[in-house]
Amino acid sequence: MTPQPNPQVGAAVKAADRAHVFHSWSAQELIDPPAIAGAEGAYFWDYDGNRYLDFTSGLVYTNIGYQHPKVVAAIQEQAATMTTFAPAFAVEARSEAARLIAERTPGDLDKIFFTNAGADAVEHATRMARLHTGRPKVLSAYRSYHGGTHQAINLTGDPRRWASDTGAAGVVRFWAPFLYRSRFYAETEQQECERALQHLEDTIVFEGPQTVAAIILETVPGTAGIMVPPPGYLAGVRALCDKYGIVFILDEVMAGFGRTGEWFAADLFDVTPDLLTFAKGVNSGYVPLGGVAISRKIAETFAERPYPGGLTYSGHPLACAAAVATINVMAEEGVVEHAANLGACVIEPGLRELAERHPSVGEVRGVGMFWALELVRNRETREPLVPYNATGDANAPMAAFGAAAKKNGLWPFINMNRTHVVPACTITETEAKEGLAALDAALSAADEHTV
Amino acid sequence: MTPQPNPQVGAAVKAADRAHVFHSWSAQELIDPPAIAGAEGAYFWDYDGNRYLDFTSGLVYTNIGYQHPKVVAAIQEQAATMTTFAPAFAVEARSEAARLIAERTPGDLDKIFFTNAGADAVEHATRMARLHTGRPKVLSAYRSYHGGTHQAINLTGDPRRWASDTGAAGVVRFWAPFLYRSRFYAETEQQECERALQHLEDTIVFEGPQTVAAIILETVPGTAGIMVPPPGYLAGVRALCDKYGIVFILDEVMAGFGRTGEWFAADLFDVTPDLLTFAKGVNSGYVPLGGVAISRKIAETFAERPYPGGLTYSGHPLACAAAVATINVMAEEGVVEHAANLGACVIEPGLRELAERHPSVGEVRGVGMFWALELVRNRETREPLVPYNATGDANAPMAAFGAAAKKNGLWPFINMNRTHVVPACTITETEAKEGLAALDAALSAADEHTV
Repeated sequence: MTPQPNPQVGAAVKAADRAHVFHSWSAQELIDPPAIAGAEGAYFWDYDGNRYLDFTSGLVYTNIGYQHPKVVAAIQEQAATMTTFAPAFAVEARSEAARLIAERTPGDLDKIFFTNAGADAVEHATRMARLHTGRPKVLSAYRSYHGGTHQAINLTGDPRRWASDTGAAGVVRFWAPFLYRSRFYAETEQQECERALQHLEDTIVFEGPQTVAAIILETVPGTAGIMVPPPGYLAGVRALCDKYGIVFILDEVMAGFGRTGEWFAADLFDVTPDLLTFAKGVNSGYVPLGGVAISRKIAETFAERPYPGGLTYSGHPLACAAAVATINVMAEEGVVEHAANLGACVIEPGLRELAERHPSVGEVRGVGMFWALELVRNRETREPLVPYNATGDANAPMAAFGAAAKKNGLWPFINMNRTHVVPACTITETEAKEGLAALDAALSAADEHTV
Repeated sequence: MTPQPNPQVGAAVKAADRAHVFHSWSAQELIDPPAIAGAEGAYFWDYDGNRYLDFTSGLVYTNIGYQHPKVVAAIQEQAATMTTFAPAFAVEARSEAARLIAERTPGDLDKIFFTNAGADAVEHATRMARLHTGRPKVLSAYRSYHGGTHQAINLTGDPRRWASDTGAAGVVRFWAPFLYRSRFYAETEQQECERALQHLEDTIVFEGPQTVAAIILETVPGTAGIMVPPPGYLAGVRALCDKYGIVFILDEVMAGFGRTGEWFAADLFDVTPDLLTFAKGVNSGYVPLGGVAISRKIAETFAERPYPGGLTYSGHPLACAAAVATINVMAEEGVVEHAANLGACVIEPGLRELAERHPSVGEVRGVGMFWALELVRNRETREPLVPYNATGDANAPMAAFGAAAKKNGLWPFINMNRTHVVPACTITETEAKEGLAALDAALSAADEHTV
């Protein structure tokens, strides 16, 4: 029952969309959303018959690709038995999803609070931290994204926060390590790491440790640029949290469930947070689902004192059944290992080879199936190909890059002066190479804007 | 494939739940969540073979009952073609859901911003209002519930807010009309209405109208007690909003989609808000979905200026396909009309008859399939059967009521000193009468605590 291209249906879909759908992050009259007919594996296609290799995994969430038959079947089966049931009860899909997730989360993160997505996972994680510590502040990093609801967007360190930032109480921002654009004037990863930790400790001390409930970090920051933290950084943050009695929250909404070639990115660094937020990859977004994995210590805070938070669809059976099937598929098919191997053996060398030939590539960084190319006007000065948060004419070089990618059958992930290579963790070597070839052509368009 | 009772499976489901599921609004070690094997129509059953008539519709969301075969089939079909696709594109299920919802929303609320549930719908509606007006404050009512995320819970006027209320910027609370417990010392509905509007205008004037972005109200407050507003109140609020340039938000997360015997409760009062939030009934929670219906005026604010908000699963195809099927089923089967008729002809007279015989019933109020019984220790003094937000021994009378209902095969909705009668909008007259009979027995247990 694969949906086929059909321009007439496409026009109707587009017309109803333009009349009635209000889109995320958009000026509603200035967008022209492509009408999509179908998707399978690492590809999708529109109603005019154009087919694209998806190097975005949607919004970095379809880690097992589109329409995995086993997960589709599991959703259909759960729909036939119990589509939904209220959160105050024990139901099989919810219990089994929690068990499978807890089995994989690091350390003693054994209790799962299910939410609908990443934003509300972050909302609840910060609430748990504040109530556990009795302290008001949460420290978060510039160059981060934590979700679109009011609290989550105020913890976010990218321009999407600005319009909603009316001075949120209890949010303090700091700088995480980023050697390529170091403002710690570091020359080595080790130096960047040490100085970033010193900066974080200074921030804690000057804010008053007894006022700091939590530090929240994306284990590997995602949309903000896939800056893989240097060895020792996250362990250093963990040590600072222990020293000052601060709850350590790792946000793995984007980095979790195979994206980095591990079940959780925390495993790359052998670090256990007190709370871990997840969504997206947990069921590849086949049904909306997110959650917070909770350490024993924090769960104990709410053992005999009610946790003051909840939601109607917490542990939604259909969403949980999709998670159960996704996790089982990932385990049976070795998706996590595949992501690690293909990343190391095909994607990374392929991107490094492109970087050698294209002067617009300033840096290649990443891990697993989670890569960023930092595009620059000039490799020496490292001036970004477009200014921070550029729009319109100022963004023309990136627009040219994007158009060239699409012309070559590749749907690219673009954020400011970067393109991210974040395909399904299940893509084959052949597909990866097809994508790299299209990227090659697109980078030539970017090269024209270098000086 | 109806799931059957099986105590052994039930024990395993329960064990995994207790080991790994962190539940909403609960002291984790003090709860004992019943393990549920299956649900169909207005009933569910546990693994020991106990079957209950559900007078809660889950958390007042399964308006079409459990496992409606047409909606189950639609979910299965959508899963087979396109389970998920990113929000920046036009896809058929999303377009069609938006069209069907916009066709039913009052007035010119023609653009639909999809969210995952009610809380994030409220988060986004208040953001839209603040950006549209450039003003900081949102006025909300005591005795209300608007969701579990930080902004939404801070707009909430019930005790679930307290633990998260660290002085949220820009939230001001007022009192809505409630004749049975009037603090405006009113003796008639008309007086209560006029005085409540005077109080609201006083609040606006003293807060400074130029600082007030929005007034948010549940059209008919739900969990807080189903206080149907007196004739003229909502029209009066609409007039105040127009007078002072304030955005009027009606929260129909619980009241919408048939619950009151209309597609939207606003239709009962012939009022059009500027923004309307929905969730739950839109697809009976078969797949998590919520949203904001947006007036032309507010949509225009974001025509050429980007709306600074979004989410990965906005307009999720599987959730939207469930909405399309649910709305079509409701239209084809006359579910909304059935809710109005059964409410007026069976539920209301049945409840009034119970009230005559049971001294514990202080007031019966509601509309459609949305009813509350206010239980009291004494009808003269109207002293609630249990104190506000009572727990433990203080709550024993309501616990006794609940236990008696369950013993009689009825799963009741209980909040403080009230029980709500909020079954599926599709229940038959026979089922409704079965529930009323069980309620009769349970109220006898409550009567024992009257004085």
